[in-house]
Amino acid sequence: MKLELDTLKPLLDPNSIAIIGASSDLTKIGGLPIKNLVDFNYQGSIFPVNPKYNEIAGLTCYTHINQIPAEVDLAIIILPNSMVLQAVRDCGAHGVKSVLIMSSGFSEIGDKGRRDQEELTKIAKNYQMRVLGPNTVGMFNLHKGAIANFALTPSLGEVPKGRIGMVSQSGAFCGYIYTLAAQKQIGLSYFIGTGNEADIDAADCIAYLAQNEHTDVIAVYLEGCKDGKKLIAALEMAKKNKKPVIILKTGKSEIGSKAALSHTASLVGEDASYDAIFNQAGAYRVESIQELLDISYACSFGRLPQGKNIAIFTVSGGAGIMMADYLAFQDVHLPIPDENVRKKLLQLVPFASVQNPIDFTGHLVNNPKIFGEFLREILDNGHYDMIVTFTGIQGYKKEAFEELLSAMKDIQKEYPHIPQLLTTLFTPETKKKIHETGIPVFDDPITMVKVANALCYLGNHFDQSIKGQLKWIKKNLNFTLFKSNILTEVHSKSLLKHYDIPVTIEMMAKTEGEAVKVANEIGYPVVLKGMSPQILHKTDANLVHLNVTNDVDVIQLFRYIRQTISQIQDAEFEGVLVQEMLDRPVAEMIIGSNNDPQFGPMVMVGLGGIFVEAFKHVSIRKAPVDKNEALTMIQELKGSSILNGLRGQPPADIEALTELITSVSHLVIDYADEIKEVDLNPVMVYPAGNGVKTADALITLNKQVLESVN
Amino acid sequence: MKLELDTLKPLLDPNSIAIIGASSDLTKIGGLPIKNLVDFNYQGSIFPVNPKYNEIAGLTCYTHINQIPAEVDLAIIILPNSMVLQAVRDCGAHGVKSVLIMSSGFSEIGDKGRRDQEELTKIAKNYQMRVLGPNTVGMFNLHKGAIANFALTPSLGEVPKGRIGMVSQSGAFCGYIYTLAAQKQIGLSYFIGTGNEADIDAADCIAYLAQNEHTDVIAVYLEGCKDGKKLIAALEMAKKNKKPVIILKTGKSEIGSKAALSHTASLVGEDASYDAIFNQAGAYRVESIQELLDISYACSFGRLPQGKNIAIFTVSGGAGIMMADYLAFQDVHLPIPDENVRKKLLQLVPFASVQNPIDFTGHLVNNPKIFGEFLREILDNGHYDMIVTFTGIQGYKKEAFEELLSAMKDIQKEYPHIPQLLTTLFTPETKKKIHETGIPVFDDPITMVKVANALCYLGNHFDQSIKGQLKWIKKNLNFTLFKSNILTEVHSKSLLKHYDIPVTIEMMAKTEGEAVKVANEIGYPVVLKGMSPQILHKTDANLVHLNVTNDVDVIQLFRYIRQTISQIQDAEFEGVLVQEMLDRPVAEMIIGSNNDPQFGPMVMVGLGGIFVEAFKHVSIRKAPVDKNEALTMIQELKGSSILNGLRGQPPADIEALTELITSVSHLVIDYADEIKEVDLNPVMVYPAGNGVKTADALITLNKQVLESVN
Repeated sequence: MKLELDTLKPLLDPNSIAIIGASSDLTKIGGLPIKNLVDFNYQGSIFPVNPKYNEIAGLTCYTHINQIPAEVDLAIIILPNSMVLQAVRDCGAHGVKSVLIMSSGFSEIGDKGRRDQEELTKIAKNYQMRVLGPNTVGMFNLHKGAIANFALTPSLGEVPKGRIGMVSQSGAFCGYIYTLAAQKQIGLSYFIGTGNEADIDAADCIAYLAQNEHTDVIAVYLEGCKDGKKLIAALEMAKKNKKPVIILKTGKSEIGSKAALSHTASLVGEDASYDAIFNQAGAYRVESIQELLDISYACSFGRLPQGKNIAIFTVSGGAGIMMADYLAFQDVHLPIPDENVRKKLLQLVPFASVQNPIDFTGHLVNNPKIFGEFLREILDNGHYDMIVTFTGIQGYKKEAFEELLSAMKDIQKEYPHIPQLLTTLFTPETKKKIHETGIPVFDDPITMVKVANALCYLGNHFDQSIKGQLKWIKKNLNFTLFKSNILTEVHSKSLLKHYDIPVTIEMMAKTEGEAVKVANEIGYPVVLKGMSPQILHKTDANLVHLNVTNDVDVIQLFRYIRQTISQIQDAEFEGVLVQEMLDRPVAEMIIGSNNDPQFGPMVMVGLGGIFVEAFKHVSIRKAPVDKNEALTMIQELKGSSILNGLRGQPPADIEALTELITSVSHLVIDYADEIKEVDLNPVMVYPAGNGVKTADALITLNKQVLESVN
Repeated sequence: MKLELDTLKPLLDPNSIAIIGASSDLTKIGGLPIKNLVDFNYQGSIFPVNPKYNEIAGLTCYTHINQIPAEVDLAIIILPNSMVLQAVRDCGAHGVKSVLIMSSGFSEIGDKGRRDQEELTKIAKNYQMRVLGPNTVGMFNLHKGAIANFALTPSLGEVPKGRIGMVSQSGAFCGYIYTLAAQKQIGLSYFIGTGNEADIDAADCIAYLAQNEHTDVIAVYLEGCKDGKKLIAALEMAKKNKKPVIILKTGKSEIGSKAALSHTASLVGEDASYDAIFNQAGAYRVESIQELLDISYACSFGRLPQGKNIAIFTVSGGAGIMMADYLAFQDVHLPIPDENVRKKLLQLVPFASVQNPIDFTGHLVNNPKIFGEFLREILDNGHYDMIVTFTGIQGYKKEAFEELLSAMKDIQKEYPHIPQLLTTLFTPETKKKIHETGIPVFDDPITMVKVANALCYLGNHFDQSIKGQLKWIKKNLNFTLFKSNILTEVHSKSLLKHYDIPVTIEMMAKTEGEAVKVANEIGYPVVLKGMSPQILHKTDANLVHLNVTNDVDVIQLFRYIRQTISQIQDAEFEGVLVQEMLDRPVAEMIIGSNNDPQFGPMVMVGLGGIFVEAFKHVSIRKAPVDKNEALTMIQELKGSSILNGLRGQPPADIEALTELITSVSHLVIDYADEIKEVDLNPVMVYPAGNGVKTADALITLNKQVLESVN
């Protein structure tokens, strides 16, 4: 993992561009980039390369890259697949700083292509040349007019130079996003299509935009990533620079498609890990292009709320309820104005609704002046972080609307930290005026409140400091004892104990006599569990016996267990685990961890027992988590209210539970190379002050660990 | 409840309109309707009424309604509040058929206004005149140019005459919807703002549109209703006439705001009843104006899918995954084409993705001909009910796009029952061409698949026959026994038994001796429960004792219970219920009913115990339900998989559970006037074949029932 941003500059902000495979037919893929560079007033040198021509579109055409008498920052390669490798070599030899390969036929077509792509990467690396693509639609940098791209034509309209940079793993979105932005007059800075990502990937581009002077907002279309840690670093860089990141990540519906050994692995799908990462890094995930653009557009005005209190203003009671209905189920608040404020508003408009939503009623049409008075009264109240306003079709009523706009503008000056969003229907003319006030405008109230919710999320995540390294001392674990990479309950728990994770009082007994002795030491009733490294599901194999109350039963059951194991093929008998019989807890939880191929160890918590199987709802983070984060994980669980003590039960020991989650998260980080999966199921949570106890545990190690220690 | 549709015709399809309170200033509320009728070429007579003028806008102005020398279908009243009642009287006396009252100051302002409104209703009734409003923005009927309405001006643009009729309880949406429809060129037939609903309400208007020749699709904005049965009748009429109804109903966030006696009442909020009604009547509920318009627009082309199998076509892999991600979590299917079909597609385009989504790849740009070939190949396969297609920015590429459109048009002729939806960016010119092909077009793929999902819901609900009356014989219940309207467990269960609802074996014992006798008859272990009409929460009062195993304990506990009750103020001791001790079930359920003020008895089912409290998720229908509907209710419960036998448990007796739900639903319908709430909690569900048993029950009667029988 490495983010070398300086080396990306010649590619994304090039002062000179060569087009290798240039065509004199400007409607062809080899001609379009030339036409675009000319049409968009590229502020740099353009060097077409093709031995067939002397000149294209008034530009000197070179026979070979090595004929270009100047430094080349970027070479666009648009050649038949078979000629690409040589062209890359030629570029390297000529000192070209970066290449953008539009040609396809590489890793996307199978083994042959994959090998070619590896070769390509090697060549570029030798020459220290960065590569975008292959199989990319290209990129555009509107501030420089660098349209290194075959998807655009001026017929798609004109996009304003703006503050939104877009990174996309799909090339098809280039023309689509550009055209939408032109229709809606949303300003863009960059579009970067990453193609096959032979070298530069989406994370590199996010990081580049995170420090780019022309970009304030980063919009991303993502299908996956090969280097999760680099992606996290890029997202954290954007967060540090207070640039909101909005991500459309596909692949949600593949959840659970993989068969998995443990509960945890089946619950923490690949997509769920992305959710956890985005959440921790403060990136906002959306599900449609429309949302991606709407939220990016609103963010591009540069104001995000610093709290979660929203005031809704409306000229229509119906629209007000509708917006409140939506926001009531989100993580924002709609505080009611203080009584003295409500009184003042009622003096202004006697039949106004002055809760929240605040309804001007039709009065506003006759008396637009009250608009500013209402807003000011509410903001002076001091409780609010953001304003959303629905004014119906006022945007069609030129004069009355001027008054509203000028009030919004004044408010914006007086309260520069309070973002305002507006919904009104508008003509192109009024839209332009609204844009000039610096207030984002929408034509649907629900679209607006969805955006408001996203802005609250983004604004409030900036303020959350990135979790620093906790004080933590790695404990020494010894893996040499184990013969199988799937640890038995007793071995799993021995590791947990080293991390001060509470487990049942228990002891292994190899003989009947030992079992009786241990049972008496622990005190009756006890639980007996047969241990065999080959048997994971002890209950199914009839190896778990609860509530054993006397010596005779211990002996009988010990024999029964040993015999049962001996009858299972290849199963070794390790002994019988004699365990205290646990009291009924307030709740059973499952706590687990899997090692995500992209992001490393993740930690998971869910309600245990039948809950987790019936609802498949768990809370996931990248490990480690501190106790605050663990608490948030618990609180966001559907059904977590049972921990507060439903049905006359006492509240559960959430303090102890957060401690346990934190410890598990450190265990899996400290031994990220050794531990593959952890499954504590169930963890019994007792009333506050009475702690938690891990009743059963299953830890799986990476196979190599045993090979290396044995 | 009554839907008198003929009497609505003069109001909604008027041949002559009088404007009482007409103003010569055509920008004022008294002038706007006149201007609108003229501007929109109203095909009927216009009679301004105002003693101040002889003529307005070239029309003769009358001094009084009784001066108009012709039949008046509709009088629009725009007078100061204090003059409205007299004007209504005058209209009645003159034989005016209906009035539309824009004036405000009635029930919306409090008691005085409410009384005036009642008076108004009475006057109109005496003259058999229908009333729209008061406090309404009015209505418009575009086919007739009858713009009885002050919200529109021609500056808002022109809306095509179309097939979508809109009913709204908010006047503010009139101009808003009109303007949006003009921007998007969506055709409308009607907008009807119902205002205070002194007479005509939203249900009347839905019913009117359900039989109106110019309307195929009914879009509704609803905040509530006073006559639920009329609303149901209207929705069922629309369904019978195969007109889709799309409803934006607000008030979701008020769920649970009411304190409630039983579990059921707290779970079945007012809004949840609406959900159940919409679901049973096949109306589709949306949450935004945008959705309301998008879905209505798509429906207005007159084609709905008859099954749930969707084929996704795309020119972008990314957009394909995005759409599949969304649809994978909806109640639709994305079947993969048969192998021979996949082979044929691969012959056409070697690197196409031919699962579902079906990705043409960039190939389509060079060879638009394959578009039709792909679609035909898939449809010939015979598995699909609907096609959704994403073609990026093809809508900007005139010639290539012609080819796609002509293919879609041919397909439409060949497969007239298969609706197609298209997403592409378009210019006004291409949009018009797409519209002419009869294919709905969107500019966002997620918007399109959300619409596709709605169309599947609507299309498939038409095919569900409306539940006929089941064969059912009302059982005789005797309420004279009861002294309190809140029935004790034993009284509640006595009613259930009459409806063959399985309950625990149990008997009341008034004395210790009886208790011992009964316990021995039932067989140990037993449960003892103290009965007092004043004590609802027996467990909290320590009146429930499980697992009582012998005569001595029965006597001891009987005394303890009697004494406990005697110490609670005003609590009467009715006896001790001796009950069989139940085995552990596969699952505990809660089944209940409340009597919705609008819709009458509703029936509810949820997972019992801690599930229902933690997740607040239940399934609700209007009673009665048959066994199929009861099964659907169970299946749609989150977590219902526990009934299939998780964790090695046997599958539950779902057959017996559906029978119980059906019986409860009949009980509450048969005694809708007597029974207020039913709460069976828990109902134990045993393994298939072993039935269900109601362990505890609480029935609440309406207070008047006891007054009338006692």
